Amino acid sequence: MRLNKEEILHKDRHYRTALINTLAGYKTPVLIGTCNPQGIPNLALFNSLLHVGANPPLLGILSRPASVPRHTLTNILNTGFFTINFFSSDKIENAHQTAAKYPIDQSEFETCGWTPEYLSDCKAPFVQEAVIKIGLTLEEHVTLRSNQTVLIVGAVQTILLPDDALTEQGSVRLDHLDIPVVKGLDTYLQAQEIYSLSHPSLNAWPSRK
Amino acid sequence: MRLNKEEILHKDRHYRTALINTLAGYKTPVLIGTCNPQGIPNLALFNSLLHVGANPPLLGILSRPASVPRHTLTNILNTGFFTINFFSSDKIENAHQTAAKYPIDQSEFETCGWTPEYLSDCKAPFVQEAVIKIGLTLEEHVTLRSNQTVLIVGAVQTILLPDDALTEQGSVRLDHLDIPVVKGLDTYLQAQEIYSLSHPSLNAWPSRK
Repeated sequence: MRLNKEEILHKDRHYRTALINTLAGYKTPVLIGTCNPQGIPNLALFNSLLHVGANPPLLGILSRPASVPRHTLTNILNTGFFTINFFSSDKIENAHQTAAKYPIDQSEFETCGWTPEYLSDCKAPFVQEAVIKIGLTLEEHVTLRSNQTVLIVGAVQTILLPDDALTEQGSVRLDHLDIPVVKGLDTYLQAQEIYSLSHPSLNAWPSRK
Repeated sequence: MRLNKEEILHKDRHYRTALINTLAGYKTPVLIGTCNPQGIPNLALFNSLLHVGANPPLLGILSRPASVPRHTLTNILNTGFFTINFFSSDKIENAHQTAAKYPIDQSEFETCGWTPEYLSDCKAPFVQEAVIKIGLTLEEHVTLRSNQTVLIVGAVQTILLPDDALTEQGSVRLDHLDIPVVKGLDTYLQAQEIYSLSHPSLNAWPSRK
């Protein structure tokens, strides 16, 4: 089957959204914790976590255009802080529900069954129930000319995770921690390791570890 | 366990790379096809596919800084075209091997067991063996101030996929097509659906579909 741009543009909006979102592949859903300058906490589900760099450690999220109020984006720009929180599969429904359009004075924490947790040096709330919690400061934000989407880059300041969460080599055991995978906006999956491969080299085919 | 920025910066480089790459969560590995202005094809593995927008359909990839020659980035900027190719789990090793540092005059297609395929309207090569193939034109590129990483945004022009790849609602059946998941730079996984959830609303808790 071949779909050209014109055909995609003529599809129903929901169809096109599902198509392009799922074409962007698998992601890890995360909860982004922020607060406004008055301290009212906000929690939002993002499916766009990305690796920007390891040295210094930088992670990014993509915010939809600010054509309607975007509480997370506004709070990050106003306070300079946000948290990234990974949840386990048994809490998917509580996370998904944070994407309902709650008014700005209603905290998604309380309504969706999450507890805000404050740690020193970070103005933004962490999610107490989260398995992995990352505190970040705003490093950079870029509005894309193409569609006014905003790329938010955060500098990792603190990582909180279970003692057995890391391998000796520094990898996070996401599958052992039962962190779900998300496809598009509504499909949740679990991941099971097939194998790890050796670092690619010119002299040898990759070997399974 | 709590890791602060200073501790992360003092870790061994490989440890830090594994930590931050895996903290960015699950991704779908894809092969990016490009060619230089003389038509020499290039193929590269990327783990940073992201959704930029559905209307118009835009997808992005993040390229490491151009401090060393980056064939994919250079080719995209010089020709304005690239392809995104999804492969199935039985081809993971062939895909992984494209990440070895081949010289610019050696095509990763031939060396790693892939076949370039050219379709009208796209200068960049597709991967014949790929399950899903997307042809894009360069829409925008942004160099991040934070670490000189380059975000490449492409406008989707053509999508080629199996006839049974889409649901009635437009979602791509990535799991049925046996498209793998990647974690960090070296761990490959398979994903199995848990459930889909209804669109979040203020009036009801999400229901399973």
